[in-house]
Amino acid sequence: MPGVDERTVRSVAVIGLGLIGGSLARRLAPAHDVLGYDADPATRAAAATTGLTTADSIVDAVRGRDLVVLALPLPAYPQVLPALAEAAAGAIVTDVASVKAEPLAAARAILEPAGIRYVGGHPMAGTERSGFAASDPALFDGAAWVLCLEEDTDLAAWLAVAALVTGFGCRVVPCPAAAHDTAVARVSGLPHLLALALAAAGAAGGPLALALAAGSFRDGTRVAGARPELFGVLCDGNRDALTTVTDEVLALLTEARDALRSGGTVAPLVTAGRAARKRWAGTGLGGRPSTVDIAAPGGRAALAALGTAGGHVLGHAGTVLDCWLPAADT
Amino acid sequence: MPGVDERTVRSVAVIGLGLIGGSLARRLAPAHDVLGYDADPATRAAAATTGLTTADSIVDAVRGRDLVVLALPLPAYPQVLPALAEAAAGAIVTDVASVKAEPLAAARAILEPAGIRYVGGHPMAGTERSGFAASDPALFDGAAWVLCLEEDTDLAAWLAVAALVTGFGCRVVPCPAAAHDTAVARVSGLPHLLALALAAAGAAGGPLALALAAGSFRDGTRVAGARPELFGVLCDGNRDALTTVTDEVLALLTEARDALRSGGTVAPLVTAGRAARKRWAGTGLGGRPSTVDIAAPGGRAALAALGTAGGHVLGHAGTVLDCWLPAADT
Repeated sequence: MPGVDERTVRSVAVIGLGLIGGSLARRLAPAHDVLGYDADPATRAAAATTGLTTADSIVDAVRGRDLVVLALPLPAYPQVLPALAEAAAGAIVTDVASVKAEPLAAARAILEPAGIRYVGGHPMAGTERSGFAASDPALFDGAAWVLCLEEDTDLAAWLAVAALVTGFGCRVVPCPAAAHDTAVARVSGLPHLLALALAAAGAAGGPLALALAAGSFRDGTRVAGARPELFGVLCDGNRDALTTVTDEVLALLTEARDALRSGGTVAPLVTAGRAARKRWAGTGLGGRPSTVDIAAPGGRAALAALGTAGGHVLGHAGTVLDCWLPAADT
Repeated sequence: MPGVDERTVRSVAVIGLGLIGGSLARRLAPAHDVLGYDADPATRAAAATTGLTTADSIVDAVRGRDLVVLALPLPAYPQVLPALAEAAAGAIVTDVASVKAEPLAAARAILEPAGIRYVGGHPMAGTERSGFAASDPALFDGAAWVLCLEEDTDLAAWLAVAALVTGFGCRVVPCPAAAHDTAVARVSGLPHLLALALAAAGAAGGPLALALAAGSFRDGTRVAGARPELFGVLCDGNRDALTTVTDEVLALLTEARDALRSGGTVAPLVTAGRAARKRWAGTGLGGRPSTVDIAAPGGRAALAALGTAGGHVLGHAGTVLDCWLPAADT
């Protein structure tokens, strides 16, 4: 027995009441003992008007809580983690940052020596808007929610966070922080980077080109209009993984360019790209229910394999996780 | 006087009754004398059931017509143009191919020596579907329609085609074939190429990456699912212009990759891309009505300048074109 038991999170502190933290606190408040904190007094006041209980300091917010959710931008971590190390011993800490390797390293350096177990998290939900005013308890309905699983992640802590997240209807995807960062670079950082490049190249054609732009340009550039901070997080904030996958795209486009220049065809990229899009569109259409007992021998490996296969956790009974496993790739 | 007079197109032949040709023939038939032709007898029969009059040969379709519209794939031009040269002397010929330099060269070689005036065209409309069964008289409603204007384009022929096209509500964009091909490479070929590369790079992340893909990946890869023939036309069919603009995108992405790799920021691309997207989104919001008299001295140059400025023609009274001129770029 790897020592996993079912522990229920009863009390939660949410640190940072922006779009994500505010939405989460509001989603949890009806059924859980939630204390919120935000460095901005006006945000705390706004949160209080929706019925949330707020604390006046991080220390007051986290002391004695089962779970602390950090819903802050990464640059705030160096200030906040030491406060947690002082006041939240024994707690589980999770977060919602859209990169996971950097928070993991910080947690290992600052939280774990203080007896705090860290489970990195990333809800795959958001909107163009930001701040508590944009928060919405329904923001996460039906969303995927990554919970990072390393070789040394405390499985009881992982289960406790997963139970909370599946409890409000999210699909929990287990994967290592490094795999998360690469996957997100591919399917989120890269689309944002390509949208910017496409918009810039389109506009370089001047008014005539923009006058002729229609559906494919509109869709391909949609996210180029996002807030600058979002690009900072998705691109600069995930630089190693994004560098790698941008190199892959550069290779694909260079090959296509060379084919065009030499009188050849882009057909190989057409074949690969069409098949890839079809594969993605089919995600979720096949598959079957499955279970993983994370307290059983090999439970950690089985959970990791679930994430690698594109599966997720939907709920649990004790240490037995109700999972969904996609159809094998064809 | 450059010899422009108002000539009205009374009789039209539409050669090729696929999505575009079929839609155009059906749009024109109620108010014009339209004869359709398609090499496929079943397509002719299908067209006849919608009330279209069809001919049994190209020669029968085009003989004595004021205007012949070629709505055929480019590879069919070498077979069809000689038949027009024989049977359509005195007519105006236009087409709907999505590249314009290659048809222009063919028309100069084959049609003009036979006394046929050619005005290249490209309706900026389409659907994912193809064939006469997908044709729809409303397909072009509100669309832009490029009509090519070269230094030697016959202005009376240009006006006759423009009058027909604005007559059913399209905005006519005048521009040289080469400028068209580059603009379309930027805002149509390039989005399709980038969608393919993004889809392929996403799927290379395996099931985990595809499971985490959401809105930005969905929109960025939408057109990767298009028919292979469309990529053949948009990419291989416009290779010179697409090579040039792909090189521009490669340079932008390489710069971003280098910045990421060296600890820098993608902020310059964020600034450029956001501004570009905003510029495109603002297209059509400003601007003012204007006129061009193409029979006046400098009329050809004024019409060319209208297209370069992103403007279009909405109608005419005699040789005076009712135009719309966008607000100057800011």
